[in-house]
Order: sequence, then C-alpha cells, then structure tokens
Amino acid sequence: MEKSQNDLFLRACKKKETERTPIWIMRQAGRFLPEYRKVREKADFLTMCRTPELAAEVTILPVDLIDVDAAIIFSDILVIPEAMGMKLEMHEGRGPVFPNPVRTEKDVEKLNKINAADNLGYVMDAIKLTKNELNNRVPLIGFSGSPWTLMTYMVEGSGSKNYSNVKSLIFNRPDLAHLLLDKLSDAVADYLNEKVKSGVNALQIFDTWGGILSPADFNEFSLKYVKKIISKIEDKDIPVIFFPKGVHSNFNEIANCGANVISLDWTVNIGEVRKIIDDKVALQGNLDPTTLYAEPEIIIARAEKVMADYGNGNGHIFNLGHGILPDINPDNAKALIDFVKENSFKYHNAASCNG
Amino acid sequence: MEKSQNDLFLRACKKKETERTPIWIMRQAGRFLPEYRKVREKADFLTMCRTPELAAEVTILPVDLIDVDAAIIFSDILVIPEAMGMKLEMHEGRGPVFPNPVRTEKDVEKLNKINAADNLGYVMDAIKLTKNELNNRVPLIGFSGSPWTLMTYMVEGSGSKNYSNVKSLIFNRPDLAHLLLDKLSDAVADYLNEKVKSGVNALQIFDTWGGILSPADFNEFSLKYVKKIISKIEDKDIPVIFFPKGVHSNFNEIANCGANVISLDWTVNIGEVRKIIDDKVALQGNLDPTTLYAEPEIIIARAEKVMADYGNGNGHIFNLGHGILPDINPDNAKALIDFVKENSFKYHNAASCNG
Repeated sequence: MEKSQNDLFLRACKKKETERTPIWIMRQAGRFLPEYRKVREKADFLTMCRTPELAAEVTILPVDLIDVDAAIIFSDILVIPEAMGMKLEMHEGRGPVFPNPVRTEKDVEKLNKINAADNLGYVMDAIKLTKNELNNRVPLIGFSGSPWTLMTYMVEGSGSKNYSNVKSLIFNRPDLAHLLLDKLSDAVADYLNEKVKSGVNALQIFDTWGGILSPADFNEFSLKYVKKIISKIEDKDIPVIFFPKGVHSNFNEIANCGANVISLDWTVNIGEVRKIIDDKVALQGNLDPTTLYAEPEIIIARAEKVMADYGNGNGHIFNLGHGILPDINPDNAKALIDFVKENSFKYHNAASCNG
Repeated sequence: MEKSQNDLFLRACKKKETERTPIWIMRQAGRFLPEYRKVREKADFLTMCRTPELAAEVTILPVDLIDVDAAIIFSDILVIPEAMGMKLEMHEGRGPVFPNPVRTEKDVEKLNKINAADNLGYVMDAIKLTKNELNNRVPLIGFSGSPWTLMTYMVEGSGSKNYSNVKSLIFNRPDLAHLLLDKLSDAVADYLNEKVKSGVNALQIFDTWGGILSPADFNEFSLKYVKKIISKIEDKDIPVIFFPKGVHSNFNEIANCGANVISLDWTVNIGEVRKIIDDKVALQGNLDPTTLYAEPEIIIARAEKVMADYGNGNGHIFNLGHGILPDINPDNAKALIDFVKENSFKYHNAASCNG
C-alpha cells in the first residue's frame, strides 16, 4: 500500500512523533456541508451508502472543502444487520427503523452469517473508488458499530428512551444476548478485515450506546466483544480507534482492549484520562460538538483548552466529542481546523524538547 | 420538629450508624403505581401539583404500598420557572413545554423574583398536609431542580436532542447565562428554605442535565450555583442530597459542594466513587432502573451487587440510578425493597465489628 502524503493521523494513532496535532471530524462527510446536501438531493440516504460513486464523492468532500487530515468512508453502521437479513428503513427526522426487531430466540437464529466481501460488496467498492480518487492525499478510515450498539438498534427497532427491550434481554436472557453478540462479533470482524483488504488505512469502532450500561454490564456485554474483534483484525499494522461514547468508568480496561486509540466524548477531561491510563494509548477528541455554535474566537479558545488539557507530546488526534451537528456553519468547522493546524506545533515542539 | 419513627434515611444521610441500609425510589410517587393512575384520572398533572390534597395523597401512596423508608413530596421541578412568570404546559407523551422560552436579555429581565411562601404556597400547603398525614412514620424529602437544569428547560423550551440553544447561550453570552443562573439560585434557595420551614426533613437537588456539559462547564455553570444554594440553606441540620445525573468526572469537587449525600446514576461503580471521594459524604443509588424489568431473582442479585460494591459501613442510601420507569410492575419494586430491608444488615454488622 502506498503511503499517504499526509500521514500525521496514522502516526498519531501509534503515538509516533508528529510536528502538529492531526484533526478530522466525526460525521464530516455528512449533513452539515451544503455540498453534501446537494448530492443527497439525488438519492436517499441508503441509496447513497449503496452507490459507490456517491459514497466516494461525499467521503472526499471534507478533504477538499475543510482540509481534514483523514477521510472516513461514508456509510452507516446498520448496513451489517441489514446484510444479516433485517429490513432497514430510514425515516426522515426519526432515524433508522427496523420494522421487525430481534426479540426471540427464533429471531436471533434466522439472522444470516454474512460474508462481507459478497454481502457488503458495495461498501468495499466505495472504499476502492475512494482510495483511488483520494490518491493518497490523506488516510481513509473504515468503521463499524460495536456488537453492543448494533444489538441495541436491532432489539429496540427504533429510537428508544429507556432501552427497555435490550435491557430486558440482557437481564432475563443473557444467554441469548451473548449468542447474538457472538454472531455480531463474527460479522463485524469479517467486515473490518474486508475493509482493510479493500484499502482503508485505519478502523474505528463506534460504541454509541455503551454509556447506557453499568460498568459491569459494559464489560460483559460490550467491551468483551470489542476486544474479541480487535484480536481478529488480521493486519496488525492497521490502527484501531475505539469510541465508547458516554462511558466514563473503566478507562484502564478500555485502554487495554487492544485499540491504538480511545476516542473520548466531551464530558471528560482528556488530560485526566491520559493520566488515568498512564499514556498507554493515543486519545482522540474531545471538543463539545455544540461549541461550533459559538463565535470563532470562542471556538478557538475552547480548542486551545482541549489541546492544553491533553498537554505536551504525541498521541492526540483532535476531533469533536461526537458527530458534527447538521446545522453547524461550515465556516466554523473550517476555523477550528485551521486553528488546530496552525497552533498545535507548540505542544509537539515542547514534547521533543522534553522527551 | 418531632422525630420520625423510622429515621434510618436521615441517619444514613449523615453517615451515622444504622442497623440496615435505608431505601426509597426516585419517582416513587408516580406513574408506575396503579393507585397513582387512579388519582391522576381525576386531574391533570399540574392540577395535581397545585392541589395539596391530591399531592399529599400520592406522596403517601408508596409509603403505604411498597414500604419505603422516606417519602418525597409530589411536585415538579418546573414550578419555579412557572412561578417566575413562564407559561408552562404539560403535553401528554411529549413532556413539559414552555411555549415562550428564555432566549434574550429581555426574556431574562422580565422573569419575576419569587417569594416562595406566596408564589409557591400550594407546595408548602402540600408539604404541611403530607407531614400531618404521614404522622412521622418516615421522613419527608423536598426537592428542586438545580439552576443549570432549570435554565436548560427554560432556554430550550421543550425536549431537546443537542441542547443547541442553551449551549449557544453559555458559549456566546456567558454573562447572560450567569445572570439567569443567579436569579434561579436565589429562587431555588428561597424555595428550599421555605420547604424546610413547612416541614420537610431533607432536601434533594436534581441536576438532570449536568451530564451534557464538559467538566469545566459543569463546574462553572452548574456546580458553582449548587454550592451557593446549599450555603444558603438556613437550617444546617437538614441533610442535602445532590444528584448530578450523568456527571462522572469531578467527583471530588462534587463531594465538596456542601451536600451530605451525592446521588449516583447507574453508570458508575458506587464502591469506586466511595474510594475516589475517600468516604467523605454519604452515597445514594445506584441500581440501573431497567433492572426492574427483570425477574425478581435477577433484581435481587443485582441489588446485592450494589450493596457489595458500596461495601461495609454506614452512609449508603439504596435507590435506583434514576427515576422508576412508568411500566415497571409494582411487585418488582416491592421485591427490591423487601430484599434490601432484609439483607442489608450484614453490611452494617460488619461495619460495627470493623470500626
């Protein structure tokens, strides 16, 4: 694989020396860009995911428009349950819906074992096309939901306030929950390995719903399977980022899950987490996404604080603490990116002097 | 004030010796009880809050029916903004709505300074009536939302996904946010002092939305005002519980806010928090509320784990990590309460032996 011309992001993932802090933005290939919404007028969301040309086009938009240090393939975490045989609908304003959620032993049994190369070939095609069009300008990230997060969507069927169905499942039928999580882990591992074969340079596992679990349940029903998946990634050179949103305990167990990078939401101090985990892995994050509603000078002050909180040294990938919101002004995102690019040298210079 | 016949809860708040762990349940005077729904058929939610006889009736229901160790006055945190002049509507299924949210300097200026004895006299009457009818069987808790949580509702106006309005306010107009928080702090302090004069035996401050803030913003826009309010509580003998839901950093600052008890949601290990704060204050919580969807033997095993996590010694008040959900079977709540009452002696015996 040819080396990216800008490999700051990949080096930061491995805590290698970089002259400045790399930055990309979760959901950067999405709704906040007017250029995205123009493409989106031509096709609905799932059609865009399934059409390699459109997926590649919107994946590259933020590289061209706001000059991020990494691209992330445009897709959705729910393509896996769909490939396993679940009917998936996207309802405007309400989000994804599985009209026939998984609730019983029979529902779990009838889920197909997938072969990602075949069943999710359109994602692989989108990756190959994107890689080709990116022409190694920046690295490309592939992603998946964690088994727990996928299971939460599959069992609830749609947006949920209290997650009563999936919680009832893990409390009353932990055996069935583990069976489903095992199936999902196999699918995710196969999917991520196939993405690597198709050309992605890094992987991110989103555990969007890890934060609804108690620490013990998180370890048993989420982290265990993330560890399993990471251990199955065949190319050990590919950095893996794990994003356990809303999880604020267990940082030491999380840092030992095999991931190179832990992505943090904005409700923790990134410097404190760095201390807790004794600088063991790189950290990604963690500006409050709503900060981008503020005036540029406030965005800048708060971005500076995140970098100062992380402190001197390598291993920080700047990002928001969650996806960029759809009504953010792209100029504000650009102001953030420019600032981090221009003003992060000092944290790295200092590091070279000190260490 | 006459002593409650069952004062386990009050002693636990102060980390004094108790023979067993006291238990009550957030939202116990609410929708999960069929007997509550029967009263609710007679009047809408806000009318119930404003009618002392009805409020007292439903406050006492869980004492009679599920035998909790404390009662909490039936009311709503949004009665304060209403008393300050905001129109408040309750929409079935959608929750509370302020049709004219606070957004501008003028909106903040026109909020009335309240006198709780007059403007919220109906709450005080409900407390007096409840105290009379409770006849000191168990202590009565009075409560308020924190200034940050009240402001979040007042600025957003209704349920919010990203809290973009209130976040924009604190980022772009911190001066105005602090002005509003100051006004709210005065109102909350006056309200809580008046509740104490009316007869409540303990106070709880709910910070339902503290968890949407970064640690630094939480300190500046929420915790600071909670500290201020607690310092203004005139009767220093009244225990104060602070519940910063979703806040998982800053435990040492939180434990130093002046509250006797910190209430924890279920996403932290109560024993670990006890260690972090060096046993400085009592802890309340923290069983996952969805556990009550499980079979009784599972509820019991998980309740035992919470008690074991807290460990030996005084200062644990058993509760859920958030309010009881409306579709919980009351038998399951009763099974939890009976179990904690019958099986918590060992943690206290051990404590007497050890210390």
